[in-house]
Amino acid sequence: MLAANYPQGLLIVISGPSGTGKGTVIKSLIKSLCNSNSHISILPSVTTRSPRTGEREGYSYFFRTKDEFLEMVRKNQLIEWVEYCGNFYGTPREQLENTLKAGLDVILEKDVDGALKIKMAYPDSVIIFIAPPSLKELRRRIESRGTESTDAIEKRLSRALEELEYIREYDYVVVNNSVNETVSAINCIITSEKLKTKRNNGILEKIKR
Amino acid sequence: MLAANYPQGLLIVISGPSGTGKGTVIKSLIKSLCNSNSHISILPSVTTRSPRTGEREGYSYFFRTKDEFLEMVRKNQLIEWVEYCGNFYGTPREQLENTLKAGLDVILEKDVDGALKIKMAYPDSVIIFIAPPSLKELRRRIESRGTESTDAIEKRLSRALEELEYIREYDYVVVNNSVNETVSAINCIITSEKLKTKRNNGILEKIKR
Repeated sequence: MLAANYPQGLLIVISGPSGTGKGTVIKSLIKSLCNSNSHISILPSVTTRSPRTGEREGYSYFFRTKDEFLEMVRKNQLIEWVEYCGNFYGTPREQLENTLKAGLDVILEKDVDGALKIKMAYPDSVIIFIAPPSLKELRRRIESRGTESTDAIEKRLSRALEELEYIREYDYVVVNNSVNETVSAINCIITSEKLKTKRNNGILEKIKR
Repeated sequence: MLAANYPQGLLIVISGPSGTGKGTVIKSLIKSLCNSNSHISILPSVTTRSPRTGEREGYSYFFRTKDEFLEMVRKNQLIEWVEYCGNFYGTPREQLENTLKAGLDVILEKDVDGALKIKMAYPDSVIIFIAPPSLKELRRRIESRGTESTDAIEKRLSRALEELEYIREYDYVVVNNSVNETVSAINCIITSEKLKTKRNNGILEKIKR
C-alpha cells in the first residue's frame, strides 16, 4: 500500500447486482462530487475491445491489443482483470497509484470479484455494496425494462443472489431506495472516511504548527 | 459487547480540549439529530454532587451518595468514572446497555481517559476527537472569553496539548472550523457508521425475504 503518512486520494469501489440502479447512482455521485469541487478522477480501464466512435485513448479506455494486455497481466501491471463477451478489461496499477498519490479520489465500478481483489491489494480502499431493497423489487426493476426474455431475467436474478452472498465482505452496504438518498449516503461515507484518524496521520503536527 | 446481530443503537463518544467549542457542537448536534427524528437518547451520568435547583433524578443525573457511588464502582456498575472538584462522576453500565439494546443512539461527552475506557469496553462504539484548527486559534478562543487568568489559560493550553497526543487513538478527528460544518461532519460519521456491513448483519435475510 502507499505510505499511510502521505496525503493521498481515497479509492472507492462500488459494486451491486445488475438492476440495482448502480449505474445511475455512480453517474449522479460523480456529478455531485464534481459540483462540490471534490478532487475526483475517473480512471479508465484497460481493454482489448475496439474503440467505438468518439472514444479516446486514456479517456474512455486504455486500448491495448490482446497480446499487450496479456503482457500487462504477466508483468502484474493490472490489479484485477476479467473477460467479458470475448474482450478483456482490467484496472491499471500504475495509473491508479499515480492518481491516488496526486491526492485525487478514484471511484471504480467493479463486480464482486474485482472489488474484493482491489480491497486485497489496497486494504485502505473503501468498498461499497449497493443493494436492492428486496429481491421482489429487483425483479420488478429488471422486468420493467421490458427488454429481456424470461430466461435472461432469471439468469440476472440468480446472478444477483450469488453476488448478494458477498455483502458481508464489503465495508458498507447502501440499500438503493432512491438515487438521491443513495448518492447522499455515499457522499457521507466518503466524507467520514476522510475524517478517520488513520487517514490523518499528520494532523497533530498541523495543529501544533 | 452486546450481540452484534441485534439491531441496536450506536454509541458515540466525543472528546476535545476545552476551548475547542465541543460543548456548542454537541448541543447543536443533539438538536439536529432530534429534528431529523433520529432515535437518540441522552444518558445522564451518575454523580455524588448535590442536585441544583431544577435538576431531576434520572434526567439531569443519577444522584447517589459517595458510599453508593463507591459501591457501584466495586460492583463494576460504572464503565468509567472520574473525580472532579471533590465530586465523582461515572457512566452507568446497565442504563447505557439498556438504551443501546432499545435501539437508541447514545452520545456521550468524555475526556480522553473516559473515551478510551469506553472504547475498550465497547469496541463497536465510535470515538470522535474534536480538534482546534491550531494551538494559536485555541489560545485565541480561550483568551477571548476574557474570564481567566494568564496562569489558568496556560494550564488549559498545556492540558489541551496533552489531550491532542491521544488523537490517533480515536476513530475520527474533526477539526472545528465552524460549528455547522463540524455538526454536519459528525452527522455524516453517524450515518456512515450505520451503513457498515458489520452493523447490518441481518440485511441479506431482509433483502431475500
